[in-house]
Amino acid sequence: MNIAEELLGGSRLALSRAITAIENEYDNAVEIMQKIYAHTGKAYVIGITGPPGAGKSTLTDKIAKAYRAMGKTIGIIAIDPTSPFSGGAILGDRIRMSELTLDEGIFIRSMGTRGSLGGLSRKTADAIKLMDAAGKDIILVETVGVGQSEVDIVKTADTTIVVMVPGLGDDIQAIKAGILEIGDVFAINKADREGVDKVCREIEMMLDLNQEQVLWRPPVRKVIASQNEGVNELLAAIDQHKNWLSESGELSVRRNERIKTELLAILNEQIGRYILTKVTDSGKFNELLHNVEARRVDPYSAVENILKDILR
Amino acid sequence: MNIAEELLGGSRLALSRAITAIENEYDNAVEIMQKIYAHTGKAYVIGITGPPGAGKSTLTDKIAKAYRAMGKTIGIIAIDPTSPFSGGAILGDRIRMSELTLDEGIFIRSMGTRGSLGGLSRKTADAIKLMDAAGKDIILVETVGVGQSEVDIVKTADTTIVVMVPGLGDDIQAIKAGILEIGDVFAINKADREGVDKVCREIEMMLDLNQEQVLWRPPVRKVIASQNEGVNELLAAIDQHKNWLSESGELSVRRNERIKTELLAILNEQIGRYILTKVTDSGKFNELLHNVEARRVDPYSAVENILKDILR
Repeated sequence: MNIAEELLGGSRLALSRAITAIENEYDNAVEIMQKIYAHTGKAYVIGITGPPGAGKSTLTDKIAKAYRAMGKTIGIIAIDPTSPFSGGAILGDRIRMSELTLDEGIFIRSMGTRGSLGGLSRKTADAIKLMDAAGKDIILVETVGVGQSEVDIVKTADTTIVVMVPGLGDDIQAIKAGILEIGDVFAINKADREGVDKVCREIEMMLDLNQEQVLWRPPVRKVIASQNEGVNELLAAIDQHKNWLSESGELSVRRNERIKTELLAILNEQIGRYILTKVTDSGKFNELLHNVEARRVDPYSAVENILKDILR
Repeated sequence: MNIAEELLGGSRLALSRAITAIENEYDNAVEIMQKIYAHTGKAYVIGITGPPGAGKSTLTDKIAKAYRAMGKTIGIIAIDPTSPFSGGAILGDRIRMSELTLDEGIFIRSMGTRGSLGGLSRKTADAIKLMDAAGKDIILVETVGVGQSEVDIVKTADTTIVVMVPGLGDDIQAIKAGILEIGDVFAINKADREGVDKVCREIEMMLDLNQEQVLWRPPVRKVIASQNEGVNELLAAIDQHKNWLSESGELSVRRNERIKTELLAILNEQIGRYILTKVTDSGKFNELLHNVEARRVDPYSAVENILKDILR
């Protein structure tokens, strides 16, 4: 049996190897994705994001355990974008979470990259599909860091939870329009801390002002992830959102939009690869490059020239 | 006269408008870049990066003033990637720096994006060229935030200064290999703080271990930017690096590599645009998309199919 078949048969080892193949762009990666694709679309994908120190890993951990208690199988993807400035806390988080891996019903995987975050976003989408095809009921995608690209990754979830905490300083200053757009459910973690009501009130107020949210008003829930408090209420809010998505038809609209975005991303990626392998080897490219270096031709005109050759 | 001609003639207003055209992808943006390209390649580009709280803006400010005192004209590009989680400090920094704008010899511009950081990197490269063509001698590119993509932006500089400070906690943990690779000069700011010698020693030690730096050993300089201390010594270190780049021939090697990277980026960008406008409107694309949505075809096979049509 090959990796794809073993994965579809439930092998954890095959799932792990398939994600490694995707991550490292092994030769068999595309073939695996082609074989498993027909078996995707069954899992429910939940994104978890928020500023550093909000306790996202702890909350992810507790959400996973709560779903397990309902008999669901879980995949967790923890996004660790490699930044030269990222701290040492990530490893500790992963070690902590590894107690979950003793449970056969939970599959955890960290994903990172030294390359472009755009690439990470594509690879995360493929890892989600692999876990989906492997039969996981719920897939949790947790971003460890912050930044636009990680927000893009989380946006691919069916339900996105934005985790906030009181006492992050001028936190409300930091919550710009972007965060309201991506949050389907807000979790105010460390709710035993001072200032929790202020944070809740401010988020509610901003949601009230947000005209785009007329169809779905994101609920705001207090949790204390470390003490497992409020987690079931949070799951109820996720369920509400899931039901709304299904009943309104938004779920298939969103999923189809995501498929289109992904198709375009793969198209761009494959063309990029074609350019790197075919175009840059050509005499014409090197001649143009030389002229651009000498400032006899500008880069935009050079590109126009190359495009004429490679596009029909 | 058009914008490009006015810019080449030294108009600040034209420079400002040209950068806006690039930033917002106005119709005339490509034309401006085509017209000014032959006049680029004269400015020296200095990148300034480091973790939040390192005092990058203050240092940029002081470096600019020191070069002004030598009679050089300066362009400053401050990168503000729009993150839903980014704080409120950025605005204050920009207001503080705006005192510099009273000097006709300094041109400051913030650049940000709500879109992809990849796009920001390309736009920054074009803004550098605009300032270069407008006759700025030195261009300082300062990143406000952190992250791989911003590091990529700073990498396009001739000399990159990595700013560190004592007392950022486990800061040495945070300095991974990546930061050593990008730093040509290290500035240890807030050098009146406790722990400065420890930070210097640790960076020197890591540089000693770094085998890739055999050709150029980055100098480590202490500064107190807020008191303008050590800035001339930092400028001397930048000058050393600049001389080494010229004498070793590395300057033109690096600049030519950058031109190649940029050509490929523009090529990818323009093909992406072609796909969006031409391909996605085609009946075939929509038919394939529909089949992928229905999981009759996987995305990779669909892309192979489309590529056959559009590439020669």
